[in-house]
Amino acid sequence: MTAGLDLPRLFLDLYQLTMSQSYWRTDPNKEATFELSFRSLPKDRNYLVIHGIERALKIVSNLSFDDESIKSLRELRKFDESFLNYLSEVRFTGSARTMSDGDIAFAGEPVFQIKAPIIQGQLLETVLINTINLRTLLATKCSRVIHAARGKPVVDFGARRAHGIEAGEALSEASYLAGFSGTATVSGGIGRDIPLVGTMAHSYIMSFESELDAFRAYAKEFPSECTLLVDTYDTLKGIENAVRVGKEMESVRERLKAIRLDSGDFLTHAASARAAFEKADLSYVDILASGGLDEYEIDRLEREYAPIDGYGVGTKVSVSSDAPWSESVYKMVEINGVPVSKSSEGKRSLPHRKSVHRVNGTDGLFAYDTITASGTDSDSPNGRPMLRNRFLNGERVIEPVSIQSSRKYHMSEMDCLPDKYKNIHKDVPYPVKTLLPDQADPG
Amino acid sequence: MTAGLDLPRLFLDLYQLTMSQSYWRTDPNKEATFELSFRSLPKDRNYLVIHGIERALKIVSNLSFDDESIKSLRELRKFDESFLNYLSEVRFTGSARTMSDGDIAFAGEPVFQIKAPIIQGQLLETVLINTINLRTLLATKCSRVIHAARGKPVVDFGARRAHGIEAGEALSEASYLAGFSGTATVSGGIGRDIPLVGTMAHSYIMSFESELDAFRAYAKEFPSECTLLVDTYDTLKGIENAVRVGKEMESVRERLKAIRLDSGDFLTHAASARAAFEKADLSYVDILASGGLDEYEIDRLEREYAPIDGYGVGTKVSVSSDAPWSESVYKMVEINGVPVSKSSEGKRSLPHRKSVHRVNGTDGLFAYDTITASGTDSDSPNGRPMLRNRFLNGERVIEPVSIQSSRKYHMSEMDCLPDKYKNIHKDVPYPVKTLLPDQADPG
Repeated sequence: MTAGLDLPRLFLDLYQLTMSQSYWRTDPNKEATFELSFRSLPKDRNYLVIHGIERALKIVSNLSFDDESIKSLRELRKFDESFLNYLSEVRFTGSARTMSDGDIAFAGEPVFQIKAPIIQGQLLETVLINTINLRTLLATKCSRVIHAARGKPVVDFGARRAHGIEAGEALSEASYLAGFSGTATVSGGIGRDIPLVGTMAHSYIMSFESELDAFRAYAKEFPSECTLLVDTYDTLKGIENAVRVGKEMESVRERLKAIRLDSGDFLTHAASARAAFEKADLSYVDILASGGLDEYEIDRLEREYAPIDGYGVGTKVSVSSDAPWSESVYKMVEINGVPVSKSSEGKRSLPHRKSVHRVNGTDGLFAYDTITASGTDSDSPNGRPMLRNRFLNGERVIEPVSIQSSRKYHMSEMDCLPDKYKNIHKDVPYPVKTLLPDQADPG
Repeated sequence: MTAGLDLPRLFLDLYQLTMSQSYWRTDPNKEATFELSFRSLPKDRNYLVIHGIERALKIVSNLSFDDESIKSLRELRKFDESFLNYLSEVRFTGSARTMSDGDIAFAGEPVFQIKAPIIQGQLLETVLINTINLRTLLATKCSRVIHAARGKPVVDFGARRAHGIEAGEALSEASYLAGFSGTATVSGGIGRDIPLVGTMAHSYIMSFESELDAFRAYAKEFPSECTLLVDTYDTLKGIENAVRVGKEMESVRERLKAIRLDSGDFLTHAASARAAFEKADLSYVDILASGGLDEYEIDRLEREYAPIDGYGVGTKVSVSSDAPWSESVYKMVEINGVPVSKSSEGKRSLPHRKSVHRVNGTDGLFAYDTITASGTDSDSPNGRPMLRNRFLNGERVIEPVSIQSSRKYHMSEMDCLPDKYKNIHKDVPYPVKTLLPDQADPG
């Protein structure tokens, strides 16, 4: 239930089915290569943190239409019965090469590449974009937050305003991949071994006669992980009450873990809290801030040396608020071995089944990437190939990877990305050399 | 599978469980009222189209923790075994009053109100905000698009870049509620009787030897609903090919339904297409536009009298791109019958279990709303009560409503909203009179 993958069998655009019926009638054995890439990077972003690959691979494995789906499609009275029979037996029989969850990628690079009978590739279009686009946007946003927080722990409070339950749970995973310390979302963390974190809500305070009563009740219930929310009524008074409960906890050999600020001027309030805790010999108590935070606001607080020990981020991160969408596309690049492309105004695509290689400099850091046509003379042997075989003839050839492994991999990759690209405010384009053979426009 | 409701049993924030254990220990029988409202309206919005209520009511009905959930929670080693036993038997036993899907609402108005033992109300917080926030943002965005399109049909192409599969399917429903003509998302439309629509993708064109071959194959396969995508290579050439296929269809007594423009300058291309179809006596062929459209761009095209017959909208609408989040909150307003509130800086909440009434003017249009404290002297008897009883003592008292009925209801409500509030560019605040008894700050 918690980490389950809902089989999205009919989550596709109608045209994928109508086109498939036409493919089926005209030439179902055409072999096509489709590539998922990000045409450009959203504002202020110099890199993408790829996420959603493992989930997308499961979806590819599960490509099929069950009886109920076929029945629903039949009722639309749009499809030929023989085509529906064909559809009921569709399974993925092709190949896939993809980047990995946690990879760092740049505009124009294929991150997921499928070579298969055209119908299979076409049917997967919508769900693959949907799966990888969301998770990559979230992981990228969270990576920026991690960078802004300069090593201080950040946790995910974003479930409530994420776009649906799936998005809330995707955020738990994407944020952990990017380096967050934990998530508040129970179904997002449980079953994936992502640490669960939590404090208390204003309603908790309001349900007691007084703030002090509420603090005491919580300290009694959870003495080893007590974080007190201090801004329900008056923040300074709340800090005073927290100090009082902190001292009471000491008298029974417990330690108040932290307080949380959730409104007002974090800089001033954090300074007041820090001073109050120092004065009361409670300097071990952490000060957490939450409420409307994103990488820009955290960066501002860090530049001003706010005495804050950790951040909780929610809303703005949960929807990647400054870039809630991307130019993620899934384009046909070869048909029966012949490179193809579209030349639509402003939306031109590049032909050829591609490879991506990453070249490190003598300092060990990423220096540049190349995009070449796979298996041609231009296919650069230099650097590390970024696309790995995942499926061959319908068989999965690499075992699934846990989010824990992907996180470790991502951390090591981030260490190799030069700092200048981590700037959250400035466009610093990473060099990607596109070395494709000349290609005349098709007619 | 398609319209199913995943039971989001553990989709909650950890603190809802830890607070609940404390409530359980101290006084599980406290009765609390929680209200879900939108603290303010997102940029450029003068009203909200409420959506997600029916789904939220199902979630309330299904409040429970199955054995697997309890087992997962036990493994966290945070909870008392007796509390977990208590949790395994939790069901909703309270009352709920809510607005309806399709209602028009304004800032500060409670749209979903729960009065129940405090633990039940607290456990539902995250999932209720998540469910109603997403769907209301989407329905509101789509309502703006409908207004901008001035009666021309609009369809939903947004599945691929919505934030997950749930969000994609929510968009099908929210857009239909707001007045769209159909959705391309098969699992979003099927089972809900939302018309499914679709054209063809660039990949389809590219999979044939030539654009003309592709057009002919599609016209042969779907003669009664053939919409040709004309911008894969050269739009003017594509229009020429569409004219040719349109004439060929006439020769076998079929009619080309439409063409779709997906890139470039829509105004110029639509004019060229219109002229070409007139010249060829194919004036019945519709011209559809899609690609990066939102209410602002559609409004611009309509102001310039673009000869476009319908719009397909996707990405920007699917994430409510200019307002991907809202200040949706779920606040405790009464505990054991005593009004409560928080006074956090910039995030003050208003106490009292509230009623909302809507007063129409002599012209029959909405004139103003009142917010009063339920059952007090201030509770205005004027106007139509906007919150209806949905649950009494845990029993559902109104039958679920279909999306078809909600859509009809919404249309009639929109007719009563004065046009000035439908302005997509300008803030025109609708009068909401808050008539609550004086309330001293709690200490």
